Amino acid sequence: MSEHAAIVGAGVIGAAWAARFVLHGIDVKVSDPNPEAGRIVDEILDNARAAWGDLGLPAPTEGSVTVVGSIAEAVEGAIHVQESVPENPAIKVPILEQIAASCPPDTVIASSTSGIKPSDLQPSITNPERLVVGHPYNPVYLVPVVEVVGGDLTSQDAIDAAMATYDRVSMKPIHVRVEIDAFIGDRLLEAVWREALWLVNDGVATTQEIDDVMRYGFGLRWAQMGLFETYRIAGGEGGFGHFIRQFGPTLSWPWTKLMDVPELTDELVDRLESQSDEQSGAHSIRELERIRDRNLAGIMRALEENDWGAGNTLKTQRERLDG
Amino acid sequence: MSEHAAIVGAGVIGAAWAARFVLHGIDVKVSDPNPEAGRIVDEILDNARAAWGDLGLPAPTEGSVTVVGSIAEAVEGAIHVQESVPENPAIKVPILEQIAASCPPDTVIASSTSGIKPSDLQPSITNPERLVVGHPYNPVYLVPVVEVVGGDLTSQDAIDAAMATYDRVSMKPIHVRVEIDAFIGDRLLEAVWREALWLVNDGVATTQEIDDVMRYGFGLRWAQMGLFETYRIAGGEGGFGHFIRQFGPTLSWPWTKLMDVPELTDELVDRLESQSDEQSGAHSIRELERIRDRNLAGIMRALEENDWGAGNTLKTQRERLDG
Repeated sequence: MSEHAAIVGAGVIGAAWAARFVLHGIDVKVSDPNPEAGRIVDEILDNARAAWGDLGLPAPTEGSVTVVGSIAEAVEGAIHVQESVPENPAIKVPILEQIAASCPPDTVIASSTSGIKPSDLQPSITNPERLVVGHPYNPVYLVPVVEVVGGDLTSQDAIDAAMATYDRVSMKPIHVRVEIDAFIGDRLLEAVWREALWLVNDGVATTQEIDDVMRYGFGLRWAQMGLFETYRIAGGEGGFGHFIRQFGPTLSWPWTKLMDVPELTDELVDRLESQSDEQSGAHSIRELERIRDRNLAGIMRALEENDWGAGNTLKTQRERLDG
Repeated sequence: MSEHAAIVGAGVIGAAWAARFVLHGIDVKVSDPNPEAGRIVDEILDNARAAWGDLGLPAPTEGSVTVVGSIAEAVEGAIHVQESVPENPAIKVPILEQIAASCPPDTVIASSTSGIKPSDLQPSITNPERLVVGHPYNPVYLVPVVEVVGGDLTSQDAIDAAMATYDRVSMKPIHVRVEIDAFIGDRLLEAVWREALWLVNDGVATTQEIDDVMRYGFGLRWAQMGLFETYRIAGGEGGFGHFIRQFGPTLSWPWTKLMDVPELTDELVDRLESQSDEQSGAHSIRELERIRDRNLAGIMRALEENDWGAGNTLKTQRERLDG
C-alpha cells in the first residue's frame, strides 16, 4: 500500500494543502462533509498546476486525490494528517479527537489554525504528544512559510517530523519557540489590519490607497528582507544599534490609534465592502487568484535568480525535481 | 539657464532623491553642511545607476549634480525643492524658512518628513501655500510610492504640481486626503514595528524568524496586492463583505499586545542589535543595499511582465525612455 497524507477539511486552505502534497507526488485522502469538496479540490488543484507552470518547474509526477466518506477512512494509515476545519475550538477539538482515534499513534496531526494555541486543542486526544500547529499562508501551494508550534504536551519528535514533512513539500517551516495566541505572522497581520481599519474608518484613506502605499512601497521591501534587515540597512554604517537608538524613541509618539480597537459598525463594513468592490470588482475572484499566483511565481523566480529568500525554497524544489 | 531641482539635506534620503532626479535628466543642486555630502551623493548615485541597469532600462541622459555652498544657492531658480534634513521640527522649520525666502514664490517646497504634519511646518514660511509633504520610501531611486500631503494652508495647485513632478521621475504619488501624523504608510509600519518588538522582547521570536515569516510569507503577497485585495480573495466568491463579516469579530480577540508600548530598555536594544548582527552581519551595509536593490528590481520586472502594481510604474518609465 502506498503512503498517503490525510486532508481533513477541504475549504480553500485544506484544498490547497491537498494540491501541495499531490504535486509533490504524495497521494492524499480528503474528508469533508461538504458535497462540494471534490469540486473545490479540483479547482484549487488546477490553480496549483498553473502556478507550478508559472514557476517554470518540470512537470511533476502527481499523487492521487481520493475524497473519502469519513474521517476514519482518510486518516487510517496516513503518514501525516493536516486538519483545516473552521476556526473554532468547539468544532476543531471533536474532529481532532476523531482523527487521533483512527490514525497510527505516531502519525503527526497538524492543525492549520491561524491562532488557537495547540495546548488548547490537544488535551483530550489520544497520544496528544503528536499534535502540532502547522499554520500556512494562502495560497498554500505557492507561499512557502508554515509556522510550526507545539503545545504543552507536544513532543520534540512530533515537531521534527512535521518540519521534515513540510520541507519535503518545499515549504519553509519556522518553529515558533514560545506558544502564544496567533503565533508570529498573525500578530503582525492583526496589527496592520487594525490600523488599516482605523484609516478607512476615519476617512484618511480608501482600501485602494492603503493597498497602493503597500504594494508600490514597503510591501516590495518585505517580500525580500522583512522588517529588521530593512531597518538594518536604514541604519547605514552605524548598523542596527544606531538605527534603534535613533528611531526607537519615536515609538512613544502618538502615531497610531493602536491603543484602541475600531468598532466594526454596519457603516464601516459597508464602506469597506463598497471600496473593495470599486478597487477590484472588475475581476472575478478566480481571475484575482490567477493574477495573484502569477505575480507570486514571478516574484519567487526573480528572487531565485538572486539566490535570496523565497527564491531559495524554489531553487531547492527545482534541484530536487531535476535530480 | 537649464532647469534644476534643489536637494536640501543630503543624507541617505536626500542623496537618493538627487539620484532619482539626475537619472531622469534633471540637474540638481545639493545643499548640506556635511563635508561628506558630495561623497554620499556619489555613492548613492552609483547604487542608483546599478539599480537602473538591474531594471533593464536603456542608459539615461543624466542631469548634473552640483554641491553648492548655501541653501540660497541651491534653491534659487529651482523648479522643485526637496527638503530631507533631520526629522525634527526645530531643525526643519528654520531651514524651510530659508528655502522659502530664496526660491521662486511658486516653486513647490516638499518635505521628506515621514511623520510631521505639513500644517506644523508651514505657518512661518513665505508663501506657505506651496509647502507639501512628499514622503518617499527607501531606496527612493527604486521604490515608486511617495505620499503627498497638504497642510491647512497648502493650495491645490501645489499638490497638483508636486504630483506632476513625482510622476515625471517615474514615481507613484498618492495624495493623502486627510492630514494626520505619520500619514498612511508609517502608521502601518509603526503598528508592525511595535508588535515585532514585543515578540523579540518576550522571547517569542528572533529578528531572523520574524523577517523569515514575512519574506517567505505575507510579504510576498503585499508586494503585489496589499492587504485588502488579498483579503478580498480570501473571502472567496462571497467577496469582501463575506470576509469582513466572518473575520472582523476576531479583532476583539486578545491577539496583540498593541494596547501597550514596549519599553526600549538597554537589554532589549542589545538583544535586537546582537540578533540583527547574527542575522545579517556577514554582509556589509553596502552589500546589503545591492542585494536589496537587485531583489527590488527583479520583483518590479516580474510584476512588469504581468502588467501589475509596481511593474506598471516601471513600464511607464521604460515606454517614456524608449519613446
